[in-house]
Amino acid sequence: MSTIADVAARAGVSKATASRALSGRGYVSRATRDKVESAAQALSYAAHSSATSLATGRTQTVGVIVPALGRWFFSELLAGAQEALLDRGYDLALFAVPEHSDSRRPIFDDVLPRRRYDGIIAAGIEPRAYEMAQLLRIRRPVVCVGPYVDEVNAISIDDAAAAAIATEHLIDLGHTDIAFIGGGAGDASSFGDARRVAGYRAAMDAAGLQQNVRVSPASGTMPSGFDAAVDLLGNRRTRPTAVVGVCDEVAIGAVIAARRLGIAVPTALSVIGIDDHQHAAMFALTTIRQQPREQGHEAVRMLMRGLEDPDAAHEHITAASALVVRNSTAAPR
Amino acid sequence: MSTIADVAARAGVSKATASRALSGRGYVSRATRDKVESAAQALSYAAHSSATSLATGRTQTVGVIVPALGRWFFSELLAGAQEALLDRGYDLALFAVPEHSDSRRPIFDDVLPRRRYDGIIAAGIEPRAYEMAQLLRIRRPVVCVGPYVDEVNAISIDDAAAAAIATEHLIDLGHTDIAFIGGGAGDASSFGDARRVAGYRAAMDAAGLQQNVRVSPASGTMPSGFDAAVDLLGNRRTRPTAVVGVCDEVAIGAVIAARRLGIAVPTALSVIGIDDHQHAAMFALTTIRQQPREQGHEAVRMLMRGLEDPDAAHEHITAASALVVRNSTAAPR
Repeated sequence: MSTIADVAARAGVSKATASRALSGRGYVSRATRDKVESAAQALSYAAHSSATSLATGRTQTVGVIVPALGRWFFSELLAGAQEALLDRGYDLALFAVPEHSDSRRPIFDDVLPRRRYDGIIAAGIEPRAYEMAQLLRIRRPVVCVGPYVDEVNAISIDDAAAAAIATEHLIDLGHTDIAFIGGGAGDASSFGDARRVAGYRAAMDAAGLQQNVRVSPASGTMPSGFDAAVDLLGNRRTRPTAVVGVCDEVAIGAVIAARRLGIAVPTALSVIGIDDHQHAAMFALTTIRQQPREQGHEAVRMLMRGLEDPDAAHEHITAASALVVRNSTAAPR
Repeated sequence: MSTIADVAARAGVSKATASRALSGRGYVSRATRDKVESAAQALSYAAHSSATSLATGRTQTVGVIVPALGRWFFSELLAGAQEALLDRGYDLALFAVPEHSDSRRPIFDDVLPRRRYDGIIAAGIEPRAYEMAQLLRIRRPVVCVGPYVDEVNAISIDDAAAAAIATEHLIDLGHTDIAFIGGGAGDASSFGDARRVAGYRAAMDAAGLQQNVRVSPASGTMPSGFDAAVDLLGNRRTRPTAVVGVCDEVAIGAVIAARRLGIAVPTALSVIGIDDHQHAAMFALTTIRQQPREQGHEAVRMLMRGLEDPDAAHEHITAASALVVRNSTAAPR
């Protein structure tokens, strides 16, 4: 069986360079990488990653924690992290653990401390102080996708600002009777929902509409938004003229509910969401766009920076968001 | 730092037993596992997985390949595989690689041969003979989620039968003008789509309706189904009375298109899908149910069997599917 020394000799480079070229860690020129890869191929060389790992103290694996695979935000985030890690020669060890499953706690208590990942990207764990403390005990770089936590790198949109901008868009169109769907569903709601509710309240307060504040609880799924909207819109006399959905899945559920109830969108009801979900355009949904795939790329970049320089100060990045006006919002009749 | 020998001594078991208990590989009684885990905890012992790997020749990691994260089938499949692997103490190394991305080929040529996974679960790679050949060269157990391939374990519903049963449901209701949406979108359509088109054709043929066969190409997404349905249903004179969607996402796209066009479902148009997607009930969609999460569990079970007994004959499992009648299908007017 060929060794890394054989590959290096054949390629005419040092062992360290050959190792860098094959591992994807550290810089080598494109030409050198090609030479080393040709040599490795000619010699049928396959690096034994366990041996590599013992030698370098690295596993070339990053653990990624998400609470749900079936939701757009997390599948996009995961796709972005996967692309960025693959580019750098790292494996993505997936932990898809629902918020309240029995398997969640053992992951933080046993699995993550025992496996030697080079770093952890964690989405949807804030504000669980206990889980965060467990991650920090591992003493590897951690990047949270979600808002500001002092001890780690973090990336997130400004949830409160996004909801406030959505609400202000409706206020600018002339709406005063604006309800919010989402949040408040207790443990089932995602960690950013409470901040979005707060952003809605703040915008209503600022416009002197605090007496019209109404929040219909819903988790972040389309069926949950549908159910909440059926209740909210069912009574003609108490029906609002506009709705802010905590995310696009909820807003799309509200659009579907409105159609089912014979309420025309946007003439009789304006609906706005947050996300720019893959189905938002099909429903002509006005929304606040965020780009979780880019956030996944950025999370990996921050993690790699932490690996290269363990003493670097933590970064807290506010991801971009922007109002996208489509055809689900209009002035009230 | 404590060693496995320290843990074994404290727990009063052999090193081999302690190793089995901590690794999750092989049988140990619940009581023994508890004893060993208490000892490990008391001694702050954390197995170094790279060292474990060199000793056993195993990485305790399974590579899982899916072509898309944003589609229901694959996210459910992944969730099932994750649950089953976590239960057994295995890591899931994720490869989410779109069908036609540049990063797809290097995964089969370089990444998978170089990393030493204990096995591979591959969804959406059939009928790529080249990719299959690369997987087999690794000489580890492979489980395909998808139809029959001789050299590997495989699990899948019978796609042709599922589409035939869906078509026959409409024929039984009295429909004769039944169109199919999906498949035929060239490279963008998923690997099972062609078999579903064939099942639809076979059912139409068997009922003497071959002259009414119409296939509108679409990939497996909701917007794609929506677009195809708008074209198919837009002309009142050529509009079919019933539609089979290649999957629920396409069928739901067709239901949304029908509503947009003012066509009542099911009175003026029957729609049936395949999957029982998480949103099927919200759209009252009649469908053929399959359970990809269960398929993920089953794939892991087959893989573990291949690890325990490398000489075992390959299994080919036809996963369960069943007609679920909701309110999107009815007799034609």
